[in-house]
Amino acid sequence: MINWYQLAHDKEKTMIQIRRHLHQYPELSFEESHTHDYIVNQLEQLSCEIRRPVGKNGIVATFKGQGDGPTVALRADFDALPITELNDKPYRSKNEGCMHACGHDGHTAILLGVAEVINEHLAYLNGNVVLIFQYGEEIVPGGAQQMIDDGCLDGVDRVYGNHLWSGYPTGIIYSRPGAMMASPDEFTVKITGKGGHGAKPHETIDPIVILAEFILSAQKIVSRTVDPIKQAVVTFGMIQAGASDSVIPDSAICKGTVRTFDPDIQTHIMNKLDKLLQGLAVANDIEYDLDYERGYVPVHNNPQAYEIVKEAANDLNFRFTEADMMMVGEDFSAYQRV
Amino acid sequence: MINWYQLAHDKEKTMIQIRRHLHQYPELSFEESHTHDYIVNQLEQLSCEIRRPVGKNGIVATFKGQGDGPTVALRADFDALPITELNDKPYRSKNEGCMHACGHDGHTAILLGVAEVINEHLAYLNGNVVLIFQYGEEIVPGGAQQMIDDGCLDGVDRVYGNHLWSGYPTGIIYSRPGAMMASPDEFTVKITGKGGHGAKPHETIDPIVILAEFILSAQKIVSRTVDPIKQAVVTFGMIQAGASDSVIPDSAICKGTVRTFDPDIQTHIMNKLDKLLQGLAVANDIEYDLDYERGYVPVHNNPQAYEIVKEAANDLNFRFTEADMMMVGEDFSAYQRV
Amino acid sequence: MINWYQLAHDKEKTMIQIRRHLHQYPELSFEESHTHDYIVNQLEQLSCEIRRPVGKNGIVATFKGQGDGPTVALRADFDALPITELNDKPYRSKNEGCMHACGHDGHTAILLGVAEVINEHLAYLNGNVVLIFQYGEEIVPGGAQQMIDDGCLDGVDRVYGNHLWSGYPTGIIYSRPGAMMASPDEFTVKITGKGGHGAKPHETIDPIVILAEFILSAQKIVSRTVDPIKQAVVTFGMIQAGASDSVIPDSAICKGTVRTFDPDIQTHIMNKLDKLLQGLAVANDIEYDLDYERGYVPVHNNPQAYEIVKEAANDLNFRFTEADMMMVGEDFSAYQRV
Amino acid sequence: MINWYQLAHDKEKTMIQIRRHLHQYPELSFEESHTHDYIVNQLEQLSCEIRRPVGKNGIVATFKGQGDGPTVALRADFDALPITELNDKPYRSKNEGCMHACGHDGHTAILLGVAEVINEHLAYLNGNVVLIFQYGEEIVPGGAQQMIDDGCLDGVDRVYGNHLWSGYPTGIIYSRPGAMMASPDEFTVKITGKGGHGAKPHETIDPIVILAEFILSAQKIVSRTVDPIKQAVVTFGMIQAGASDSVIPDSAICKGTVRTFDPDIQTHIMNKLDKLLQGLAVANDIEYDLDYERGYVPVHNNPQAYEIVKEAANDLNFRFTEADMMMVGEDFSAYQRV
Repeated sequence: MINWYQLAHDKEKTMIQIRRHLHQYPELSFEESHTHDYIVNQLEQLSCEIRRPVGKNGIVATFKGQGDGPTVALRADFDALPITELNDKPYRSKNEGCMHACGHDGHTAILLGVAEVINEHLAYLNGNVVLIFQYGEEIVPGGAQQMIDDGCLDGVDRVYGNHLWSGYPTGIIYSRPGAMMASPDEFTVKITGKGGHGAKPHETIDPIVILAEFILSAQKIVSRTVDPIKQAVVTFGMIQAGASDSVIPDSAICKGTVRTFDPDIQTHIMNKLDKLLQGLAVANDIEYDLDYERGYVPVHNNPQAYEIVKEAANDLNFRFTEADMMMVGEDFSAYQRV
Repeated sequence: MINWYQLAHDKEKTMIQIRRHLHQYPELSFEESHTHDYIVNQLEQLSCEIRRPVGKNGIVATFKGQGDGPTVALRADFDALPITELNDKPYRSKNEGCMHACGHDGHTAILLGVAEVINEHLAYLNGNVVLIFQYGEEIVPGGAQQMIDDGCLDGVDRVYGNHLWSGYPTGIIYSRPGAMMASPDEFTVKITGKGGHGAKPHETIDPIVILAEFILSAQKIVSRTVDPIKQAVVTFGMIQAGASDSVIPDSAICKGTVRTFDPDIQTHIMNKLDKLLQGLAVANDIEYDLDYERGYVPVHNNPQAYEIVKEAANDLNFRFTEADMMMVGEDFSAYQRV
Repeated sequence: MINWYQLAHDKEKTMIQIRRHLHQYPELSFEESHTHDYIVNQLEQLSCEIRRPVGKNGIVATFKGQGDGPTVALRADFDALPITELNDKPYRSKNEGCMHACGHDGHTAILLGVAEVINEHLAYLNGNVVLIFQYGEEIVPGGAQQMIDDGCLDGVDRVYGNHLWSGYPTGIIYSRPGAMMASPDEFTVKITGKGGHGAKPHETIDPIVILAEFILSAQKIVSRTVDPIKQAVVTFGMIQAGASDSVIPDSAICKGTVRTFDPDIQTHIMNKLDKLLQGLAVANDIEYDLDYERGYVPVHNNPQAYEIVKEAANDLNFRFTEADMMMVGEDFSAYQRV
Repeated sequence: MINWYQLAHDKEKTMIQIRRHLHQYPELSFEESHTHDYIVNQLEQLSCEIRRPVGKNGIVATFKGQGDGPTVALRADFDALPITELNDKPYRSKNEGCMHACGHDGHTAILLGVAEVINEHLAYLNGNVVLIFQYGEEIVPGGAQQMIDDGCLDGVDRVYGNHLWSGYPTGIIYSRPGAMMASPDEFTVKITGKGGHGAKPHETIDPIVILAEFILSAQKIVSRTVDPIKQAVVTFGMIQAGASDSVIPDSAICKGTVRTFDPDIQTHIMNKLDKLLQGLAVANDIEYDLDYERGYVPVHNNPQAYEIVKEAANDLNFRFTEADMMMVGEDFSAYQRV
């Protein structure tokens, strides 16, 4: 019997080299043209069918096996984040202000390593393997849906994805059946009162105090209005208003994120934010804008697929642990809904 | 008897011309070199002693009268504000980003007009008149104190100042005995928690929610801890924290102003802001910086001086009204403390 | 010239005796029948016209002087409070749960002493003196208005009242021209949410958290929406909700008082409390009742009357001080509005 | 093979009769003397060893089987709640103010029915069955621990309990492996400020506003400081302060409950409530008492025991569903810890 783990392990150097190359040339979501070309170059060395672009910048590589069998897709994403890399590794980012800080360089290096292993052992392959190299995972609406719309899952029976996770110890595979990653929504609120001199508050409608009330009042969405057995987060990540100590500004702005697994709770929180703002408008004669954007649907693993991964891990003598749910999001969920 | 009002009125065109010139060439506080030179030029036409610079950019012009009598000082300030003028008058500001938006151009034009009247009627002057042209009124520590330290009030028996006020109707003189303008303090608070992923609030100390608590809690300083018969304002003019919807920042900042007449209440509020922050630090394991800068002392008019102004207004057939207290500040108060 | 002070002083023992009698037999507002009779008994010894009852329990005694002159009214109130007296003076209250804790026993004893002095010196009286013994000062709508409606001020040119004040040192007369005492309004709020098990907050609408939001939000009425030069108080004196640690109740109640001098600010605060509650209703799907009862109008002293009191104090060698404004109320204001 | 379900079903009438008897004579926790005697009477008809009292009011009945086998305990509780029954069933409570509102009458009736079935089929019993009739489940410290301390589990290999649940449809058995019911803690907070006249808030330390701040601030314990994947509830069920609209009271009180599954989170919340109060004390010069009483430990079902119940349900053709976690508590958890 083939020792697939050993075969993959033999590709370690190649994968490290690919990963470090990608790490040096990160590209922002939906702008991954060089990364696209690099992946295509690698794949063109192999005996697979290449279709590209799929969606805007995606690539689909298909290995056809010998006998009858299922068509299994493996997915890796390859976009980077607008972060400036601060470390001084020799392979640090050469694109100022852009960094592979979420591990997508590793995902892609792994999948290209896997591609080589498959390529060298096609004779052992029953069924087909489809490799999905995906762009634009970090930003809604996500590259996954665009690639699906462009047919990347046509004929595919099952799809697997992976994510490196620095919070877990090396060498262990984590997964869980059912809900695993949350729906990451974003919102922006602008509260418009009436500015004026800080010494005459009664001639103004102070938007800073009202924003403070909104932020505190929103704490009770999670603490009072969501089933405590269920999971939900409402976080404010940004606030901004005014410029001077003595001038009350006309308006105040905040941004935040909502994380949920249950679409009813997601809708509830969206509506509740709006109702709290409606209430503040009635109470204080302010106006407000709430711009709420739903994020990816939650990652929800098929229990059968989960069992297959667990068994494979056991077969390869890997440690395997059932993961906790995570409040982060992933557009891998788009493939799971098809 | 001399009709001083008529004499001043005869200078109207000159004063308008001077005011429009100053309006076109505004200069920021403590940087008023051209304005300084312009005033000196005007004064050099007249029979007065000129001392300059007094403090950094101030000018003191002394008219010596004939007989014995008190030495009375009149003060006008001449700095401008960092505001971009938006109107399109022919005499609009030629210094982009700087504007005489607080009337100091008018104050100086008036005092130069008065200088001409005095100059032409020195024979009628018993005692002396000292004209104080002051720089740097808008920014703490203020030019007044610097000019006093440099001797501008030496030998002066009484000092008068004026302020144009667009909130009042034209043609009426407003003043009041005792407390008239407040002490305008400024503060900046930085709350330092612990940043992290917006989906994992429990691994962070969220400074945005704590800032919101601080702002709301500070409302009760005025509503609960200051004698309701007394006057006090605590205004937050600026808040800033974070940049992204999903990242909890390390820290949050706010700026504000405190307005009081009573130095005990001023000290109480300064201490209370600090205590509220101490409490939030204990409750939430945050750190904080409170940078509190006391502003000018309150303008507190000598009741005798007030009566003199009131009588003079009556003598000249001006309407005169007792003004309400104002929560704005003026460094004219420095002259009153001498 | 008659030494009126000496004459009054000669009545000290009588007044102490009267005051202690009244102190032992306090009666609640609008229930002062025994006190009424006691006062009438005293007055019947004197040469005055007695009209009674005026309103429900009031008495008006008129002394007619010799010559022409104004008719001046002096007013004393005589109701007590629902407080249990705890001290052990020999003259402590004999009516359990009722006490002269606001000095009205003293006011009435003084006025009866004054009545004796006048009675004995009618020959020196030009014009007339009307003594108004008033019931029901402590509770809205107040006895003053009822006595006015029943004619107690008919033919009266000017009215004076007094109040003992334990916060001031003995032997000094305090007054002030213009606004002196506030309008004391009362309100009760009931917030109705939806009760349920404390372990399932999402199935309830928690009225306790919403009441807490209301109380905090109401702090900004004074701190942000009232001119800081003006005076206003919003105090919550009572909160009540629930009985058990684990059961979220259906509703929560609070009571409070609003104190103002300016009727526009009074109306503003009443409306603002309602708007805050409207906003909370919109935000949280609660219902609410706001029962707001305006108190007496502010005491606003006629400046001329003030000068007369001041001069009289000087003539009698009393110390006299201009009082601060007070946030307490008095239905003496009703007489001032006639 | 014996159809145990049919045997139990044959006892339906008996069980209904017992349940209705118990329902008419409910007794409060730790005061269940009549119920104790009633159960003993029933058991004395059967071939079991009776030990009583176990703890204060408990009874343990042991049926010894024929062969070797495990000793399995079944537990039913029998105390009632201080609630007045409002319905008009013929078997409504005859003890005014006391009611079997939590189903314990049903639990005991079931276990007495089971006792009869076992009694009649002792020949089929391998091993032993121990029936635990428990008093005092509703009130900490709970009868379970007292009965354990008195030996009720001596020699017992495994223990099972049940709870009727009106929120679930009839005829389905719900259970779950691992954490099932929460730890129900209780707390009382007293905040002591400084009372005074509502018109002079600056002379007081207003405990009502500070309690409102505490309640709002405590919302962020769940929303910000507990892992959103985990479960926690902080509920305030009672608030009380003051009696009058115009008097600021000295102190304010609240009661509440904390529900958790994870002892680290339980300890975190207890400490966090204390830290919030410490912070408010520093900020406002108040004093506080926090009386926090940990409730029962969480019900945490042994996965093997769960599987046995599930299989038994299947064998008897019962529908079986995996239950959600519940934020309520049960002192059955005490037996699980032994």
